[in-house]
Amino acid sequence: MQVDGVHHRTIRVAEDGAGVEIIDQTKLPHAFEIIRLDSVEQAASAIADMRVRGAPLIGVTGAYGISLQMRTDASDFAVRAAHATLLATRPTAVNLGRALDAIRDAVLAVPEARRVEVAYAKAAELADEDAELCRSIGVHGLPLFEAAFARAEAAGRERLNVLTHCNAGWLATVDYGTALSPIYRAHDAGLPVHVWVDETRPRNQGSSLTAWELGEHGVPHTVVSDNAGGHLMQRGEVDLCITGSDRVTASGDVCNKIGTYLKALAARDNGVPFYAAFPYSTIDWSRHDGVGEIPIEERDPREVSHIAGLAASGEVVEVALLPPRSAAANPAFDVTPARLVEKLVTDRGVCDATAAGLAALYPEHQLHSA
Amino acid sequence: MQVDGVHHRTIRVAEDGAGVEIIDQTKLPHAFEIIRLDSVEQAASAIADMRVRGAPLIGVTGAYGISLQMRTDASDFAVRAAHATLLATRPTAVNLGRALDAIRDAVLAVPEARRVEVAYAKAAELADEDAELCRSIGVHGLPLFEAAFARAEAAGRERLNVLTHCNAGWLATVDYGTALSPIYRAHDAGLPVHVWVDETRPRNQGSSLTAWELGEHGVPHTVVSDNAGGHLMQRGEVDLCITGSDRVTASGDVCNKIGTYLKALAARDNGVPFYAAFPYSTIDWSRHDGVGEIPIEERDPREVSHIAGLAASGEVVEVALLPPRSAAANPAFDVTPARLVEKLVTDRGVCDATAAGLAALYPEHQLHSA
Repeated sequence: MQVDGVHHRTIRVAEDGAGVEIIDQTKLPHAFEIIRLDSVEQAASAIADMRVRGAPLIGVTGAYGISLQMRTDASDFAVRAAHATLLATRPTAVNLGRALDAIRDAVLAVPEARRVEVAYAKAAELADEDAELCRSIGVHGLPLFEAAFARAEAAGRERLNVLTHCNAGWLATVDYGTALSPIYRAHDAGLPVHVWVDETRPRNQGSSLTAWELGEHGVPHTVVSDNAGGHLMQRGEVDLCITGSDRVTASGDVCNKIGTYLKALAARDNGVPFYAAFPYSTIDWSRHDGVGEIPIEERDPREVSHIAGLAASGEVVEVALLPPRSAAANPAFDVTPARLVEKLVTDRGVCDATAAGLAALYPEHQLHSA
Repeated sequence: MQVDGVHHRTIRVAEDGAGVEIIDQTKLPHAFEIIRLDSVEQAASAIADMRVRGAPLIGVTGAYGISLQMRTDASDFAVRAAHATLLATRPTAVNLGRALDAIRDAVLAVPEARRVEVAYAKAAELADEDAELCRSIGVHGLPLFEAAFARAEAAGRERLNVLTHCNAGWLATVDYGTALSPIYRAHDAGLPVHVWVDETRPRNQGSSLTAWELGEHGVPHTVVSDNAGGHLMQRGEVDLCITGSDRVTASGDVCNKIGTYLKALAARDNGVPFYAAFPYSTIDWSRHDGVGEIPIEERDPREVSHIAGLAASGEVVEVALLPPRSAAANPAFDVTPARLVEKLVTDRGVCDATAAGLAALYPEHQLHSA
């Protein structure tokens, strides 16, 4: 992804081959800052504080977190402790656990002396794989956008209106993004894409990250409150909805940022296709009932009661929004039942949001089906 | 309504019998300030800038706006000009036009010399009527709450969880509120009511007004992002939804604050009853297709791109949320089709959200039905 004309990935090993550099996403859109992680504790904090976020990216950050630990103590105990520390940061996305397991297994399979080298190599492999998976999502998603634009054109409209929620762009992954990958590809292919960006309270990943990404790439977009999507769909101003996911069950239920379910309901009520885009690493083959089985992270109520932005002084200032004696609650994800999802868009292709649809794309996982 | 133990209405004539005093609702929840209006222009600005808001209250404010005009010029021309100025402030709520018509007709029916007196008397009558209508909404709504709590108790739950969107409390009316009127009545009757308060972006009437009102009255409540309601309903944590309305068609379609439709969809998907509460003055007997016929106000995008709150310095500070080159859009209302509304709660009683339901409560309007 380009930022001011320079290619960036969201995470990379520093020039000294030791530290890990990330974009501090809590500073966007008001500042673009790259910070350095030098320990597993710093990696865990970066995930918990959402300096990095997005299911694929926190997976890769976790992998580098174990790698950092290997530099100071590569014992079996240290490997398992780093794994546990990182896994405890955020409970909902499944990519994190999968990446941590992969690194743990790889390093435990070799002698301590080789663990630093193996960990960094494996983390780099996961990062490269994630970028390639996301690129593939764009390739497979593009025809859905072309078909939606053909329908829009047939109805006399001149642009393709896409609605997305939260940030499932390159900032949520190593590169390209999940839901935004086909948006970028469609834009680059010359389709007149316009994106309605849900601001995505409480953390505003839409207005602070997705809007920023799309702006850097030159994709036309308009930020709306999370409340607006239903109205836009009723008025025929949305041709398709596409979001990412933090965990998809084997049956096609889509867990994603809180509020996604409401947009999927509105899409269904208005005949607008709702797509979820994600790499295979987001699929939890062990779960079959999203609402009943996926743990939903409860985050700090302060994310609802306070918000930060750029004051006229040029400083980023946090302000309180609530009366002092009012409480707030902050569930971070919800589950969109498969019945509301038109298609799943993955690195392997497009399929129905059903157990059969996913099993056909990933036949190697049929053993794990219920 | 009590504020710090003192009874307040949202609007009143000043002690000098001339000016009109309102609570400046843009200052809540951080400050409780009463400001004085002395001209029709000040009344129009107060409505447009949302110092007063809520369909019933802007109707009464409009009535006092014409009254203020009568003090300086009570000519027919001035009456009509004041009517036009006030009507142009906000297009969606129907109460405003109805109140303005009532005052205009009353003053034009008497000689210029009597118009000041007649206007103030008529405005006071509308204010008293609004308070009484809202009190009645509470009386009629209470049995719905009692029934919902009986169901909740039967399911082993100890509190009645109500979700509301925006502010349809006493701040939106002269007193009591619409959606909040039965909430206050249920609380005062000893039902263990807990209210999930949607923050209601972009203007946050939920977190700044509803939360404040409920806190002043001692009603337990928790503020959530607008995205959270669907998840809460999926988890069985909402027993009923109730909102106000800015305009209800003769067929029962409910136009209300943007995002209401999304909650009604989630309520239907989860078997949670969704109620809309309003006085007869909110019903537009001339409209039968809410989505197609109700004009939806587009407000300043700055309400999406910027937000104000209380900084650590103790000052209210406005901060920017978006990247500088990103646009925003700000539709202020949406329409919930009657099919998603379980019952309408009005000053006359509870009815189905259908033409027949409304006509049975208001038989004097059957002449106007399609």
